[in-house]
Amino acid sequence: MAEPLIPAPRADTPIDGRRARGDRTRATVVAEAVQLASVDGLEGLTIARLADRLGVPKSSVHTAFGSKADLQVAVLRRTREILIEHVIAPSLTEALGRPRLLAVGEAWFGYLAGGVFEGGCLLSSAAAELDGRPGPARDELVAVMTEWLDFLACNARAAIRDGDLRRGADPDQIAFELQAIGLTANWHHQLFGGDGAFRAARAAWSQALERPARRI
Amino acid sequence: MAEPLIPAPRADTPIDGRRARGDRTRATVVAEAVQLASVDGLEGLTIARLADRLGVPKSSVHTAFGSKADLQVAVLRRTREILIEHVIAPSLTEALGRPRLLAVGEAWFGYLAGGVFEGGCLLSSAAAELDGRPGPARDELVAVMTEWLDFLACNARAAIRDGDLRRGADPDQIAFELQAIGLTANWHHQLFGGDGAFRAARAAWSQALERPARRI
Repeated sequence: MAEPLIPAPRADTPIDGRRARGDRTRATVVAEAVQLASVDGLEGLTIARLADRLGVPKSSVHTAFGSKADLQVAVLRRTREILIEHVIAPSLTEALGRPRLLAVGEAWFGYLAGGVFEGGCLLSSAAAELDGRPGPARDELVAVMTEWLDFLACNARAAIRDGDLRRGADPDQIAFELQAIGLTANWHHQLFGGDGAFRAARAAWSQALERPARRI
Repeated sequence: MAEPLIPAPRADTPIDGRRARGDRTRATVVAEAVQLASVDGLEGLTIARLADRLGVPKSSVHTAFGSKADLQVAVLRRTREILIEHVIAPSLTEALGRPRLLAVGEAWFGYLAGGVFEGGCLLSSAAAELDGRPGPARDELVAVMTEWLDFLACNARAAIRDGDLRRGADPDQIAFELQAIGLTANWHHQLFGGDGAFRAARAAWSQALERPARRI
């Protein structure tokens, strides 16, 4: 299985001036929308508030995004890219398996602590918000989180194969436990502040990835 | 240290008819508000929507709760009581320490799976929502979650003392890890449905509370 969330090289596409300008506008709107959604939630993200923050008329935002649902999907896609840039990419210098999982943990806690999002990790908070709201935004979130859990499980599987994690361990169980640590680091940090959340998360991450004792 | 979240016996207070009716009205409003907030979030909880769901005029809700902030605090207090009824109380027949923590896990997963809340556990989702919104609701949430983490840590401390968990383990670290499992069970279940979340959570809970190997 190919490791998920690894960016494929982009095919060169011919440049069209008007389209390029439209893309830049959309990118500016989405960048602001990501920050707004991290504070007010994906449901709190209205075209009116976004236009207000950007200092542009509502019609400009409407031109770039036809509906709130389109905007929510665009925000989740951009958040996926941010996850790749800040959490996945820095780990790719390490070998698949336990070394990459150790690096992903460090990158993840740095990203959660570092204020990439004004209001904490959007992917962590969106699940509760979109529950009971079927639609394209929820589908996008499920797709991104499936890909992320698969990325963790894929590396856990390699670690088990390499003898770096207990033989017979379940890669999906390990992915669940690692996700639990990051999700709770974000939760704890949002609620209590300080860096206690990341100290506890680092200790838990190391323990979850502890090498099995050698048989003598 | 007294174990937190254990309900103290209530002092008898003289009964006042008008006050008792007012209390019943507030209780009815709060019960509905808890369900609404679990779906739409604490911020999505407006007096207008609540009145609409209850089929009463907005003024009745206003009489019971002066402001949205008052209502949010009342919802969080009621959610704390629900947590005590559904998760803490069933564990109190077991001894303080590891037996109680095992029982709390079972009760917690049952409560998350059982649809006590229409839209998933309110306490789990509220942290992200109230971040960056200082005020009485956020203070109440911090108080409840501190009490809950203390309850877990207090039992972890007893388990370490009893030799049921590794000597030298950090009770607060164990509380963080147990909280991570429950929080993520809720997150996973909200997002993916099915009972995979609770299978993974039960396995992680047992492992977190595994007895240390006896020295021979």
